[in-house]
Formats: sequence, C-alpha cells, structure tokens
Amino acid sequence: MVAIADMLSSGTVIRPDGRAVDELRPVRITRGWTQAPEGSVLIECGNTRVLCTASFTPTLPRWRKDSGLGWVTAEYAMLPRATSDRTARESVRGKVGGRTQEISRLIGRCLRGVVNMKALGENQVQIDCDVLQADGGTRTASVTGAYIALADALAWAEGKGHIKSAEKALTSQVSAVSVGIIDGKPMLDLPYVEDSRAMTDMNVAMTGTGDFIEIQGTAEHQPFNREELGTLLDLATKGNKELQALQRKALSSEMGHIVSSEQAKDKE
Amino acid sequence: MVAIADMLSSGTVIRPDGRAVDELRPVRITRGWTQAPEGSVLIECGNTRVLCTASFTPTLPRWRKDSGLGWVTAEYAMLPRATSDRTARESVRGKVGGRTQEISRLIGRCLRGVVNMKALGENQVQIDCDVLQADGGTRTASVTGAYIALADALAWAEGKGHIKSAEKALTSQVSAVSVGIIDGKPMLDLPYVEDSRAMTDMNVAMTGTGDFIEIQGTAEHQPFNREELGTLLDLATKGNKELQALQRKALSSEMGHIVSSEQAKDKE
Amino acid sequence: MVAIADMLSSGTVIRPDGRAVDELRPVRITRGWTQAPEGSVLIECGNTRVLCTASFTPTLPRWRKDSGLGWVTAEYAMLPRATSDRTARESVRGKVGGRTQEISRLIGRCLRGVVNMKALGENQVQIDCDVLQADGGTRTASVTGAYIALADALAWAEGKGHIKSAEKALTSQVSAVSVGIIDGKPMLDLPYVEDSRAMTDMNVAMTGTGDFIEIQGTAEHQPFNREELGTLLDLATKGNKELQALQRKALSSEMGHIVSSEQAKDKE
Amino acid sequence: MVAIADMLSSGTVIRPDGRAVDELRPVRITRGWTQAPEGSVLIECGNTRVLCTASFTPTLPRWRKDSGLGWVTAEYAMLPRATSDRTARESVRGKVGGRTQEISRLIGRCLRGVVNMKALGENQVQIDCDVLQADGGTRTASVTGAYIALADALAWAEGKGHIKSAEKALTSQVSAVSVGIIDGKPMLDLPYVEDSRAMTDMNVAMTGTGDFIEIQGTAEHQPFNREELGTLLDLATKGNKELQALQRKALSSEMGHIVSSEQAKDKE
Amino acid sequence: MVAIADMLSSGTVIRPDGRAVDELRPVRITRGWTQAPEGSVLIECGNTRVLCTASFTPTLPRWRKDSGLGWVTAEYAMLPRATSDRTARESVRGKVGGRTQEISRLIGRCLRGVVNMKALGENQVQIDCDVLQADGGTRTASVTGAYIALADALAWAEGKGHIKSAEKALTSQVSAVSVGIIDGKPMLDLPYVEDSRAMTDMNVAMTGTGDFIEIQGTAEHQPFNREELGTLLDLATKGNKELQALQRKALSSEMGHIVSSEQAKDKE
Amino acid sequence: MVAIADMLSSGTVIRPDGRAVDELRPVRITRGWTQAPEGSVLIECGNTRVLCTASFTPTLPRWRKDSGLGWVTAEYAMLPRATSDRTARESVRGKVGGRTQEISRLIGRCLRGVVNMKALGENQVQIDCDVLQADGGTRTASVTGAYIALADALAWAEGKGHIKSAEKALTSQVSAVSVGIIDGKPMLDLPYVEDSRAMTDMNVAMTGTGDFIEIQGTAEHQPFNREELGTLLDLATKGNKELQALQRKALSSEMGHIVSSEQAKDKE
Repeated sequence: MVAIADMLSSGTVIRPDGRAVDELRPVRITRGWTQAPEGSVLIECGNTRVLCTASFTPTLPRWRKDSGLGWVTAEYAMLPRATSDRTARESVRGKVGGRTQEISRLIGRCLRGVVNMKALGENQVQIDCDVLQADGGTRTASVTGAYIALADALAWAEGKGHIKSAEKALTSQVSAVSVGIIDGKPMLDLPYVEDSRAMTDMNVAMTGTGDFIEIQGTAEHQPFNREELGTLLDLATKGNKELQALQRKALSSEMGHIVSSEQAKDKE
Repeated sequence: MVAIADMLSSGTVIRPDGRAVDELRPVRITRGWTQAPEGSVLIECGNTRVLCTASFTPTLPRWRKDSGLGWVTAEYAMLPRATSDRTARESVRGKVGGRTQEISRLIGRCLRGVVNMKALGENQVQIDCDVLQADGGTRTASVTGAYIALADALAWAEGKGHIKSAEKALTSQVSAVSVGIIDGKPMLDLPYVEDSRAMTDMNVAMTGTGDFIEIQGTAEHQPFNREELGTLLDLATKGNKELQALQRKALSSEMGHIVSSEQAKDKE
Repeated sequence: MVAIADMLSSGTVIRPDGRAVDELRPVRITRGWTQAPEGSVLIECGNTRVLCTASFTPTLPRWRKDSGLGWVTAEYAMLPRATSDRTARESVRGKVGGRTQEISRLIGRCLRGVVNMKALGENQVQIDCDVLQADGGTRTASVTGAYIALADALAWAEGKGHIKSAEKALTSQVSAVSVGIIDGKPMLDLPYVEDSRAMTDMNVAMTGTGDFIEIQGTAEHQPFNREELGTLLDLATKGNKELQALQRKALSSEMGHIVSSEQAKDKE
Repeated sequence: MVAIADMLSSGTVIRPDGRAVDELRPVRITRGWTQAPEGSVLIECGNTRVLCTASFTPTLPRWRKDSGLGWVTAEYAMLPRATSDRTARESVRGKVGGRTQEISRLIGRCLRGVVNMKALGENQVQIDCDVLQADGGTRTASVTGAYIALADALAWAEGKGHIKSAEKALTSQVSAVSVGIIDGKPMLDLPYVEDSRAMTDMNVAMTGTGDFIEIQGTAEHQPFNREELGTLLDLATKGNKELQALQRKALSSEMGHIVSSEQAKDKE
Repeated sequence: MVAIADMLSSGTVIRPDGRAVDELRPVRITRGWTQAPEGSVLIECGNTRVLCTASFTPTLPRWRKDSGLGWVTAEYAMLPRATSDRTARESVRGKVGGRTQEISRLIGRCLRGVVNMKALGENQVQIDCDVLQADGGTRTASVTGAYIALADALAWAEGKGHIKSAEKALTSQVSAVSVGIIDGKPMLDLPYVEDSRAMTDMNVAMTGTGDFIEIQGTAEHQPFNREELGTLLDLATKGNKELQALQRKALSSEMGHIVSSEQAKDKE
Repeated sequence: MVAIADMLSSGTVIRPDGRAVDELRPVRITRGWTQAPEGSVLIECGNTRVLCTASFTPTLPRWRKDSGLGWVTAEYAMLPRATSDRTARESVRGKVGGRTQEISRLIGRCLRGVVNMKALGENQVQIDCDVLQADGGTRTASVTGAYIALADALAWAEGKGHIKSAEKALTSQVSAVSVGIIDGKPMLDLPYVEDSRAMTDMNVAMTGTGDFIEIQGTAEHQPFNREELGTLLDLATKGNKELQALQRKALSSEMGHIVSSEQAKDKE
C-alpha cells in the first residue's frame, strides 16, 4: 500500500469533510429497523441512508422452478426527495429508469456472488434497497447493508426450517465501496460533492477473502491508466475490509442496536 | 360525548393492544428527519411509520401558471416490504394502483383545504408520504405528518423570501385519524389487525377549529346508521384534537427532536 | 327535516335550473338498453347520461378462487366527448387516471355492500359504467343505475341456474346521490355548474333501509361543521329515497321501457 | 350489375335475418344525440350502434402548426360490453390494441379524403367513434356516422366564424359499407354471424360521386379472383348509394330527430 | 393489359430512377442471411432492405391450444435510422404505433392466407420483418421476403419431424407489391419519393394462382374510380408474377446465395 | 505480458473454435452499410453482427440547451431472432429491459469518453447499435463499431459546416473487448458458448493511448483475485490494440468496402 502512503504523505489534499483520502465516512448500521421483513437493515454512510430489506419466500419465479436451486434478486430505488432536488417517482412516470435498473442488477449480482444456490434450495430472497437520503455511494451502501439483511433472512429461514444451514447458503461476506479520482488524486468513499467532480468513478465489491465480485469503473471525463487503477483498488480493498469488520460486528450485536464506526474509533 | 362515555363504561371491549376504544396509539413525531427537503417529518403511530416530506418550488405546473395562485399536491406510496408480505413495486409494474391514487388524492385535498392559494403565490409544494412500515392508518398518519412538513416548508419559504407570510399561507391546522366499527363497537385509530375486521371504516380529517375537511366512510361489510355515524365522529374529533396538540408541540420543538405522546402522558 | 324546511322557507335560493334545494333533477331509467350484457341500464339524471352494464361470469379472478365466495367489481369511464371539452382517452394515454380509479373503486364498494358473496357463489359480476354525457353526479348516477343492472344480471343468473336465488344474493337496494354546499346553502343533486362552485361536495350511498354504505365528503374550499353535515345527510336521505322508489319501479317495468321521475310527477 | 341480379335470381341464398344478398340492414341516424360535441351522431345499422362525435378545436397538433392547413383525426373504441363476451378495457390493459389502431386510422383517412385542408384552415376536428353495441360492420358504420358529425361540426364552425365555408371544407360525401363472400356468395353488409364465417371480407368507402376512398379486402380464409372482386364492388356501390341518401336526409332533418331507412321503405 | 400498354406508349412519364411505369425496382434475395432462425431472408427492393425471419416453435399461444390447428403471426418494425430522419424507438416510447400494428397485422393475414393450419398442426411460426433501410414498399417487401422465410422454416420443421409435409402446410405462394397513382398515372412499385406524392396508394398481395389475398387501397388525397382501379390491379398482377418467379428461384438456390432480378435480366 | 505467454505455453487449452486464448475472432467492418445515417457501420466479430449508426442532429435535448456543449447518447437493442431462441420485442412488452438499458448506458459513456463536448458544440449524435445476430460480445462489438460510425458522422458534420473540426471533437479512439475466466483460464473475446460458462466476465473499453474508459467485471459465479485481474487486463489490452488497428484501417478505406482481420492475416 505504498501508493496510499505516498498520497497521504503529500499532505496537500483537503476533502470537503476533512477526511483523509483513504478514510471512510462514518458508518452506522441498525439491524431490525423495521419489523415485517425477514431481514431489515438501516445503513448510514455519512449522510447517505439506505433501508435494505430481505424478503424470504419459499417459492421461486416460474423460470427457476424445479431446478433444485434458489434465487436472489434485488431492487433499488430512491425516495423522490432523497436528493437535493425532487426526482419524479418512477411509478408515476410509468417506467423504471436506466440508472435504477443498472444499480438493481449490480446489487443482485453482488449478493448472488456469495450465495450457494444449492444450499438455498428452492427458495427466493428478494432484496429491496430504498434510499431514504442520498449523498453519494448509495449503490455501494446498498450492497453492504443488503448483505446483513440477507444474512438475517437466511438465519430466520434456518430457524423456520426452510433451509438447512444459513452458513452453507452464504459462502462469504460481501461489501462494496466507491473510489474515484478527483483532480488527479485517487480517493476512497466519495460523497455527492466529490462524486460529481470525479474524472473516474469506480465501485468495487469484494468478498470476505479479499477477492473481487464486481468492478465497475467508468471514466467518462478522463481515462485512467493501469497505475491509477492499482491505487484505486488498494483504496477499495482498505475500505471494504473496514466495512466487513463493521458487518461482522453488526451481525453479532442485538437487533435494534446501532453499530457505528465512530464507536469503534472511540474505543481505539 | 355521552356515546363514548357509555361505551367505555361498558367495560367489556378488549383491544388487542389493550387500548381503550377512544385511545390513540402512541405517536412519535421527528421533524427534520432527512436534510434535503424543505420539510421532512417522520411520524410514527404505533407501528405505522411514514416519512412525510414537503418540497417547495417557486414554479407551477403549466395548467396553473399565471393564475396568481399556488398549488399543493401529494403523492403517497409504500415501500415494498412495509407490509407483512412483500408488495410488488408500482414502478416495476409500470402503473400506479387505484388505492395509491385514491390516497394520494385524499392527502392532497386535505392539505389544500388549509392553504390560502393566493397567499402561497405562484409557488408549488409537493408532498411525499412514503410508508416505511405499515400497520393501519397510513393515510391518516400521512395527513397528520404532512401538515407539519408543509408548515416547515412554508416557514423555510418565508425565510428565503419566496412567500410573504407562512402564517397567512396556512389558514388552519389539519390532522386526520381513522375510526371504525368492530363487532358493533365504534373505535378510534385502528391498527391493521382491527382494520381488516372492521365492518365500517372511516377516515376523518379536521381543521384546528374542529371542522371537517374530509370524511370518507365505507361500509362494504355492514351498513351503518346515523347514530353510529355520530359516535364515530365523536371519536374522530377526540383523536384529532390530541393529534393537533402534538402537531403544535412538534412545531415548537427543535429539529431532530422526537416529540412523543408518551412523554405527554408521563408528564400528566 | 327541519333544516331543509328552513332553507326552503327562506325562499331566496334560485338554482340555475329552477329546482328547489332539495329537489332531484329529472331521472330517466331504461333497462335492457343494449342486448349483449346480462344487465344493461341507461340512466339519465338531468343531462348526465350513463350506460351501466353488468356482466355475469361463472368464473372468479384467481385470488378469489376456491373461497366459496363470489366477487363484484366495477369500472367507470367517460367517453372523450362526454364533457364540454374533449378529454384524451385513457387508453391512448396508456394509463387510468386517479379520478377514474377512485370512482371505479367507490362504485365497486357500494355494490359489494349489498351483495351476499356466499349466496353469489363462485361467480363474478363485472359492472361497467360508461358516461356518455357528463353534467355532474356521474359517479352517483353510476351507482344508482348499476344497482339495477346488477339486479337484472342476478335474475338472469338465477334463470340460467348459475345461482340459486337472486333475492338472497342481493341483501338490499343501494342508490347514491350528491349533495353540496354552495354559497353557504346545502343543496341536493348538483349539476356541473353548481358542482364546480361548491365549497363542500359529498356523495352519499344508502341502502334500502336508509343506512349508509359510503359517505365521501370533501371540503377543499371551505370546511364544514357538524350541523351542516346533518343537513347534507338529510338532503341525501330524501334524494336516495326517491331514487330507490324509481329503481323499484324500473325493476318492475318491462325491458326497453323508459321509467321517468317526470311521469311520477305527472301522476301526482 | 348483372352479377347481383344473377345471384338474386338464383333465389337460394337465405341470410339469417332474411335479407336479400344486396340489402342493407335497417339504418337509424340521430343527429345531436349528445349536446356537448360540435357534431354528435348516433348511428344504428341493425344491432350495431355507434356514437360518433366531432370535436372542433381552433388549434392544431404541434407538427401541423403554421402550415396553413387543418387536420382531421379519428379514434375508434368499443365499450367493454358492446360484444357478447366482455372485452377488457384498453385503458386498463395500458395499451391500444392493433385492431383498434387499424380502424382508427381507416376512419381518419376516409374523412380526410373528403376534407379540403386549406379551406379548413388551422383548425382541427377530432372524430370519436365509440361502439355502444357491436354486431358487425362497426368500422363502416363509424365512417358513415362520422361524416354527418363532421358536417355538423363544420357547420357549427362556420356559424362561429372559425371557418369561412363549411361547404368548401367538405369536398364530398363519404360513406362506407362492408361486403364479403360467404359460402361462395358475395353479400352486402355483414352482421357478426355472417362476418365470422366470411372467406373474404371487404370494407369499401366511397365518395358522393361514386369514387373510392378506401378499399380494404382481406381473404385470410380463401383468396378471391378478379370477377368476385367486381361483384363485391357492385354490392358496395349499391349500399353506399343508399347510405348516402340517408346521410343527406339526416343532414336536412332536425337535431334529435331519428332518420330511418325503414321510414324510407314505408313511404315507397 | 391494354391499359398498361397505353400508358407506356404515351412515352411521357419519367420516373426519378428511370424505370418504366410497370417496372419493378431491382430485387435481391438472400436466404440464410442469419443463422439462428429456422428461416432467415434478406430482401432488397431498390434501397429498401428488410430482414425477414421465421421462428418455428412446437407450441401454441394459449387461446389456440387443443384446437388441432397451427398459428402464424407476424411483427414488423423499423430500425430507428432506417429512415432519413431518425425515428424514436417504439420500445423507448413504451408503445407500438398504429402504423406498425397495421402493417404487422397485414403481413400476418397474408401469410396465414397461404397456410393450411391443419397441416401445420399444433405449431406456431412467428414472422419478424425488421426494416434495416426504408425506401418505400417496406410492407410489401416484408410479405414477399417473409414467404420465403416461412417456406424455409416449414422445410426445417419437416426435416425435424415437427410437421408431416411442408408442401401441404403451404397451400400457395404469396407475394405483395405496391402500386399507386402519381399525377394521374398509375405506376408499379413506388419508392419513397414517389409514394409521398401518390394520390392513391395500394398494396396488393396475391397468391401463386393470381388470386387476391389482400387489397389495401387508400386515396386520402384524391379518390380513384373503377377504371383506375383496374389499371392498378393489372400493374400489381404483373409485379407479383415477377416477384413470385424470383421467390421460386431463391427457394431453389443455395443458402447464402444472392438471387437478383438483375441477374435474370442479364440472362435475357 | 508474461501471464499470457505462460498460459499459451501450457498448450492445453482448446477453445471450441480452435482459437488461442489471446486471439480475437475474425472481425469484419463495413462502413456505409446503409445510406441514410451520417455514420453507418456493420461490424461482425465472429458470428456476432451489429449495425451501428450515428445520427447527427444540430439540436440538443432540452436539459442540455444553451450549455455551449454537445451531447452523445446511445441506444442498444437486439432483433427478436438475433438469438437462438426468439426474444419478445421490448416495444411489444412496452418497456426496455434492464440489460438493454445497462448496455445502452455503457456504450454512451464509452463514446462520450472520447468526445470533446465543447468542440462538438450544440449538436447531438445519437448512436444506435442494433444486434442482427448475437454470439457473445455484442456490447463490445457495439462500442468498437459505433466509434467508426461516430467518426464518420463527425466528418460529415465538418463537411456540412455544423462543426469546425471533427478531429478536435474526437479526442481519441475507443474500442472494447470482452475477456473472461473459464475453468480457471483467462481468455480473450468470448463467444456465447464460452460466455455462458464463464466464472468471471469482464468488458474493457480502452482509448487509443491504452488508457481505460470503462471496466465492468462481474464474478457472479466465482470471485477473482488481483492477479487474475491483471491477466484479464493484459488480454483486453492486446485485443483492443488489434481492434483499433482495424478501426484505423476501416476509416482509411472506402465506403462500402469490407475491412477484415482475416485479410490482415493473409498479408502477414
């Protein structure tokens, strides 16, 4: 991680919220935030706030029936006033926009990437990630929060006898974080004010073993080279490790309890 | 209010949550729950939890332009897993359902009923009521919460100079509550378990002066007579008075502070 | 009915069409107006003209199957040029508007309110109310006309052996009428010119025993108090009684014959 | 017209309703059937009943603006229970079906074929043909009725000073009729019971001078040859002449008066 | 064919591309243009270029099941830039336009007109005609090309044992061509530049025996008389005969080989 | 590029089409394949065949107006029978699917990544990529072909005086290629048969200078590590270099001429 060290040592980058370039925003995770879903997690990354629920149903979509395999799918959406200007509802406009579909598909792939479909059996988990407040990184917060909701739903399903082992159904942890290059500097976890200025924007989902499940890097404003890519992946690896530690902590804490990265800091 | 007294004296009605027939569920109101909207209120009535936001914009829909009058409109929606079974997203189904439209229109009428469109001037307020958790009475909680969000948005607009006087723009308070008849007994504020068994179901929106803005009573399962109607309106009047007291308390408390009907009780 | 008497005695209210405040517009009812439907009724209330058909089918929507119960549903629509300006077709716009849905649901609830679903058995009746000409009170005319079409369809079904007893399937009559407050005066049965000026507008559906099935009062322009509500309900009760007398007369007259409230008057 | 004479002389064809092969069903035309539209005509051809309205507006669709030319467009639809089985509403299904669009376009072309767009000026006429009862020939009845509604709307527009001359705007009469081949026999004006058995089905729209505006012949079940085509066109010519005589009679009769082909017969 | 002779003898008509009034544009047909479909034909008529595919499936739509009969259906579409100005995609606009539906239905009827549904058995063929480049006559080129794709798909199905005899399933050839009247002159096979100026426009589909399957003539700009109709049909008959000769030649040539009307000419 | 060398040296991987793991499928590029668009390119990568058109219009979408900047957008679609089974048309289903939207957005970003919006001025280029035949890698073939169509459209626009310099408007080349890991082996340019078995699937768009514009790697079936990522990027770099050489060759060849990678090979 020499690259990050170098950047930090330069000492000249000042982020709007005073964070270091390789520092996550404060994260708060509340399990069981609503009662109805089998898994329900409120995740807050800075001002971004996403409600992630996991709905377990012992049925499958028709095309998947009699396969002996389960299915995990995801839908992402934003409340109309999650953003600084009001966004028209997709239900009212009568169609789901491209961005929404792209993100829904990303979340679904990331979670399926850590599920053993055979161990899940002929059951379905539907993930819903609804952004209550948006300040950058909503798709990566969704993946990180949804993993916990999924874990809770599988534990519930094991308890109810729908699946044999939640542990086997979930092959690994998964979290995601955004990285980007702003004014030539690679940075971790971009809020909206940075994201909108980023030349390159990348979302990286990783497993608990540090492998990649999804890399989506786009450089509409300025192409990036192999070396910059390396630095971005270093930052993402660092961020995902910290997020995964928090996920584990949340999963071992009580329902309704808020697990916060600030608490972790205080203890240090 | 003899009718309620009589019912209470009978002493035999036991509600699932132990409330008296004329007792509201615990109410909690948080202003400024999200930062982006000009007004943002989380209202909780028992387990029902609705995020009400008010978006002020100094523009009007085309049909209203050059009228010298403002406009207030509302949209209601439920998160897919606000309910015990997951409900498919209306955006994915490609159309807004009849129930959603009916409720959106009700909320809009109730709020327009307390707005002086001339004093609002050529500005628009868009109300969004998104149900995060549903346990009966979501439409009435929406009206009650949205009023506070609207008041906050108008105060903001006065502060920014968009309107001259928030006080003049808002002619009265408005709140709403559900009442219904279960097993022949009129009751106040029905949670889902009662609502689904009610013979008659009525939603009553009232102004701060105790007048009606909207009465929607439906008796799909058992018609009701004039006397029963009288008792239901007595109950609704009592409930709305208590809700309006809480609205006033919330509007005089700080942003982010939770105002709760339980606190009020504790003080008694 | 003192209130109405008082209003009438005041002698000062002049309605555009010369009616007394508690007087219905002329009503004409034609059963069997078209041949295909099991029930087909053309109802005319003043210039409002609605074709109400009832389609009986010995099948149920999927969610209702194997319940031992029947189902009644309703759809309301307006021809594009039923109104003074042409309204774009909802089919062309690709979605059913909020007002249409709200009214369709109202009609469905009113009719279900007088149907014994067990006696109907596993059969469905679909009500269609298509407004051919609109001059206020289209939703209440729809309810009043649809009841007759429903009764005809059930009689047809009994004749064909689909149900045992039409009489048992229909527990009561139902009719509906609009009332409103204009310039402070409560009035019965508002045509468009009055409806558009009304401060308060209320639709009241009642059974043959004088009980309420649906009350929808909205006061977007001026809240109303308990006393005004009382007067409005008195007017609605009077109007519904007269409509129900006409419904009975129509049901005992021949198919294709026009039953008119004017004839009734002539006989007096 | 030897061909028709031959067929008639054969004496063996018996149509379900007893008509001769070259005989129209009874036609009834009522102008001014509803009050709001600038032109409103109820046309009945046997049991087929269509309400044709013409809406005149002194505006144009955007693509036609500043062309100095007017525009005429048409929409066709069926009420859900115009047919023997109930047809789901296109508004509820969220899209206009192919058959509906095909017919709407046909009606529009036929009427535009007799309109002088320059004389119409920058005005639009929207034709709506709503089938209240369907028994074959709904599209041709629509054309025939819509012509009268269009003529009325243009006369209204002349009266209001929107156009200089209704006579110049309308270059000719237009009517339409169906013909077909059943069991090898060409026949005029097919009701549903014949239409559904026809090998070849053809709709022919003609001007007052006996020229063709539209010929749509389809032989999904059995191709037809040049000679059969000749006979079909002879029949269509005869039918259209009779329909045009009735159109003229209707246009010279009073509003609200019913003009019937049976009356014409009685007089003979 | 005196009429055509007369026109040609007049010697004064000069078409933009130098063709005689009764001359087809150069036609090129490539079978097996893509590999996946059971039948795949690229047909080029002048600059009009349509990819026609036939998809054979041994299943039926639900409404046709257990009828013992097969089904053939067709869908027509244009690529957005097949036209000189870009046309918005119907998928993006969310609905299929009237013109598209009208043409899809026409193609379906023409092909069904030469299929023996009993011999096809309970199988379906779906025809797709996608216009890659449009220069007039796209619908008639679609019919002509689709016939070959259909023949290939049926031969494939016979080879696979899905049907007993492709020969019996196809009762005749079918091709289609456009004719029209420009400046009073009837002409064969109109490219866009002529089509847009045509007073009368007619599409004629004929079988191998010279009978008509579909005639669609529209004279929005100038009605036509019986004599003109005769000349148009003469031209269409000549064109279709030539197209059918090419169809036969294509069906007897190898997959991937281009059959061209120019080659035919060269040989003469 | 040691990694690739190692893989090749192992000598054991046999791909279904006999290619080496780092070998592209044969590529064929035809400029000016259709006449109407300002840029029109048929690109064939193995059996994948995509028609890429670029439509230049001297107008902007409303949200971009008066910005002094141009805009480039893209839409991707597949013909229904581009695939081995027929896919229902998105126009008929009434909505654009998630996969289609995801790919359309990807293509748009890639092309915008090499356009200088200021130099483009207030003009828009709409890219359409329509898959005529699909055999894996359709989205990357689309990017590679669309770049050439875009270059042609810009050259056209310069010729017409709409933009000053096509060279300045296009800041770099861009091409894209797919890579993936199959049975643990990283490979270049996957056809469908390989793509469907890939554990990891990655699409990489690169500029002419070898920088990244877009990396989309997804490992739904098996996470990948940093080393594997390195090898995949090596393969993608090699593939893109070869594709860019072909792009340059195509752009310097004549319209209508087919440029093929096989020709290049032959010359070697």
